Amino acid sequence: MFASLTVLAPGLLGGSVAMAARSRAVAARIHVWSRRAETRASLRAVDWCDLVHETPEAAAAGSELVVVCAPVDQIAPLVERIGPRLAPGAIVTDVGSVKSEICRAATATLAGRDCTFVGSHPMAGSERTGHANAEADLFRGRTCFVTPLPDTSVAAIDRVVAFWRALDADVVTESPERHDEIVAHISHLPHVLASALCSFLAQGDPRWRELAGPGLRDTTRIAGSDAELWRSIFEQNQPEVVRAVSRFQDELQELQAAIANGDWFTVKATLERGRHYRAGLRG
Amino acid sequence: MFASLTVLAPGLLGGSVAMAARSRAVAARIHVWSRRAETRASLRAVDWCDLVHETPEAAAAGSELVVVCAPVDQIAPLVERIGPRLAPGAIVTDVGSVKSEICRAATATLAGRDCTFVGSHPMAGSERTGHANAEADLFRGRTCFVTPLPDTSVAAIDRVVAFWRALDADVVTESPERHDEIVAHISHLPHVLASALCSFLAQGDPRWRELAGPGLRDTTRIAGSDAELWRSIFEQNQPEVVRAVSRFQDELQELQAAIANGDWFTVKATLERGRHYRAGLRG
Repeated sequence: MFASLTVLAPGLLGGSVAMAARSRAVAARIHVWSRRAETRASLRAVDWCDLVHETPEAAAAGSELVVVCAPVDQIAPLVERIGPRLAPGAIVTDVGSVKSEICRAATATLAGRDCTFVGSHPMAGSERTGHANAEADLFRGRTCFVTPLPDTSVAAIDRVVAFWRALDADVVTESPERHDEIVAHISHLPHVLASALCSFLAQGDPRWRELAGPGLRDTTRIAGSDAELWRSIFEQNQPEVVRAVSRFQDELQELQAAIANGDWFTVKATLERGRHYRAGLRG
Repeated sequence: MFASLTVLAPGLLGGSVAMAARSRAVAARIHVWSRRAETRASLRAVDWCDLVHETPEAAAAGSELVVVCAPVDQIAPLVERIGPRLAPGAIVTDVGSVKSEICRAATATLAGRDCTFVGSHPMAGSERTGHANAEADLFRGRTCFVTPLPDTSVAAIDRVVAFWRALDADVVTESPERHDEIVAHISHLPHVLASALCSFLAQGDPRWRELAGPGLRDTTRIAGSDAELWRSIFEQNQPEVVRAVSRFQDELQELQAAIANGDWFTVKATLERGRHYRAGLRG
């Protein structure tokens, strides 16, 4: 499908991209680069990549498809760095959780070159990090957004869509702006709530933590994620996150008021609406 | 340990109490009663109880320990119903998620009789319901609150503590009021948030639900629980739930403001505090 694939900064997601591609014979050769020398050394021991490079430019040079798996605030700078070394016709994509800023900056960077940036966001991953936690089936049955701009080449979009489908993801094509609005609600808002809940409880009686049951554990799992990674996601998606949290606060205030006022009809209706929504979630 | 044990209204929790007691030989004979004739018929087919009764009075008559497993708003009325038929020295406990109202009412009901109410709350269960989902090891390693009043007989407290320990629970003794404050924070608040989040998203674009990843699924698992059950928990613990949600709203507003103002230092500090708290949760 691709003669050569490059994965820059393979952590949990990028490692899984490479493993998934290897296990499905999606790329003949897989090149990787990682910022830390220690990680590069550990990558030399894995069987899901062929060559570990010392620089992102060297790793990307000549590849048909480059997948940038760095944190969201480092994706556009990496695309800028590798731009001059990309092969004619090369396609660059990423796995960033926010798309508007990245797609705009990366597309501008590659303008005038014979290569195309098409943003991607596979809704996979976990609170674990590092390529040691990578899985070949991480994307199976998971939503993967592909977020072209209005002028993006259709041939490049099709290649990127085909790539994620080959990794068994369910591909959804949306504009970067619409993507950012959607994930602000279904991913970033839950993260804000889980983190705020843990931060709130952390300021209470320390012995209470020992008493918590599985409900609190599940509700807050995503609060165990890397703080810097999520700080930069919130920064990149600031207006949409602020809007989603603000609208949620209205809903919470209504439920709070209903409980405080003993309006049990409204309380039950809210719980029922929530239960019905939850029952329809995938997985 | 007990010659006879009665479980009233065995659903997921009560069924697990009986199964756990049977598998550990905690009671020689186990009696049950369920409100619905259909459930009583299904109980005749299980091997973790010996006799299925037509009324709660008949099931409780003569038992050394009665565990009332009905929804929180039906516990005190059931204790009132069985009171006149209890054997001398009988101990009554429950599995209700809220304790102050229940302990006060049930203790008043049994006043003047030679039997004792000692409140319990095992922090187990799930969004599933019904005795068909019961598990003999549901309480293993889980917190179980035992919530005596200041005048409760020490011998009765010790028996109830020993009962839950025999079922492998980690017993914590607290006053009913303190218990209600604690669970408002570590159990009822997470439930309010999960339900409010689902109710909020249910009012948005219906197609977004299809796109959600595992983060939203875990964060909202408890929103899949029975609505009437939780409505009555919020009603019984109204002041503490209102206080906990209100204090959480301040925390959420601070995080929201930090994101809106681009105060990334505060955002990251909040995420870090949350991550650290989450890392210390049991299980």
